[in-house]
Amino acid sequence: MKIVCIGSGNVATHMAQAFKASGATVLQVWSKNQEHALALASKIEASAISDLTQIDASADLYLIVVKDDAIPEIAASLKSVRGLVLHTSGATDILALASIQNHGVLYPLQTFSKARPIDFAEVPLFLEANSESSMDLLRSVAAGISARIYEVDSEKRRILHLSAVFACNFVNQLYALSQDLLVHHGLEFGMLKPLIMETALKVQSAIPREVQTGPAVRGDEQTMNHHLALLGDMPELAEIYRTLSNSIKKTHS
Amino acid sequence: MKIVCIGSGNVATHMAQAFKASGATVLQVWSKNQEHALALASKIEASAISDLTQIDASADLYLIVVKDDAIPEIAASLKSVRGLVLHTSGATDILALASIQNHGVLYPLQTFSKARPIDFAEVPLFLEANSESSMDLLRSVAAGISARIYEVDSEKRRILHLSAVFACNFVNQLYALSQDLLVHHGLEFGMLKPLIMETALKVQSAIPREVQTGPAVRGDEQTMNHHLALLGDMPELAEIYRTLSNSIKKTHS
Repeated sequence: MKIVCIGSGNVATHMAQAFKASGATVLQVWSKNQEHALALASKIEASAISDLTQIDASADLYLIVVKDDAIPEIAASLKSVRGLVLHTSGATDILALASIQNHGVLYPLQTFSKARPIDFAEVPLFLEANSESSMDLLRSVAAGISARIYEVDSEKRRILHLSAVFACNFVNQLYALSQDLLVHHGLEFGMLKPLIMETALKVQSAIPREVQTGPAVRGDEQTMNHHLALLGDMPELAEIYRTLSNSIKKTHS
Repeated sequence: MKIVCIGSGNVATHMAQAFKASGATVLQVWSKNQEHALALASKIEASAISDLTQIDASADLYLIVVKDDAIPEIAASLKSVRGLVLHTSGATDILALASIQNHGVLYPLQTFSKARPIDFAEVPLFLEANSESSMDLLRSVAAGISARIYEVDSEKRRILHLSAVFACNFVNQLYALSQDLLVHHGLEFGMLKPLIMETALKVQSAIPREVQTGPAVRGDEQTMNHHLALLGDMPELAEIYRTLSNSIKKTHS
């Protein structure tokens, strides 16, 4: 399996390394920025390129791992290849690759950081392809790097991407706001870390609504009013407190 | 160290077991409900009682681990004891125990479930006491069950409790809402579990705002508008989407 990796960010880095570890050969890493291409390419014995016209036309697989709004330009430059061209975006329709003969989507539902290793075998991968033969190849390619594979259409993939905004981006913002609150009162975010871990661990085996705790689910108006008073000088946190407490009450009414 | 545990819920169960494991003797477990008292007492070789007048006056430590609004009644029944009386509530002032000679607070900042074991040594404990001698005893008691000990006054403890609402209760509600969204579209919550774990793991070593991702921090209005359109038949989720996206934009502006 010969692969060209188009992109060199966090997702590209983790995905290209997973393919390399599975025994594939990464021929090239492309980035607009030659240094960025080189940083990844040097880790996986690939060539670094920064010119789309230099892309090797003989690869079996082309991974487009760039920002969503850069996908059309990349797709246009891959019109004539015969290998399977995949984008990896949750929010982008498969139709973005319609001008390419063999194409599909390989969406990893995970948050990737440069500094943190990821066990790719545990990353859920969502597959879509333009034909049965593309899907056959895509299935075997995906099975080489992950044990958690699902086939979904572009509409369902968009819902997954949206659900990740709630469960990752918004959750992380709540972590950031709780840090603001603690620091504002001379306390440390580290004090909350065991609670944050346990809250995430709990829903690995339990249904979230069934393990809800705190004043809103108890209907403890006195504590909620007290909390809102404590947030008197942080109106943004007070608004979020009201909105999410109401949501909890509604879920449990 | 002879202890009386007043309460038999999740927190009482984990805390009493941690004390037992540290070598203390739990003399009695009290609950309004004799069966509940017995369920915990039988695990830790204690007597089960359901009458506050039967509380052993010779214990070194009395742990009040009941709902906040039940603390005054319990405190009233412990006025004459000489041992150290502690409540374990984040939201309750130490003054709730003012009528008792030796008193203090031992607040564990963690979410406890009956079904899940907890490594109590990792649970942050927040201490407050009415005198230096009470604090000396409280420090040694707390050090017997946890390695993470802090001394804070009632005001700071209330802030910690409030921050836990953001980082635990509200986070869990976001998990619940993302499950609603997935199920509404025929998808499974299990697909999000690796992302949920990684999001919590990431902030164990990184500062939350520095690892934020997603459309709001990128200022990607097109994706946000698309997401809001997808939430057209779920107005409550749309409101939360707007509120938290605005909060992320504000944090990063």
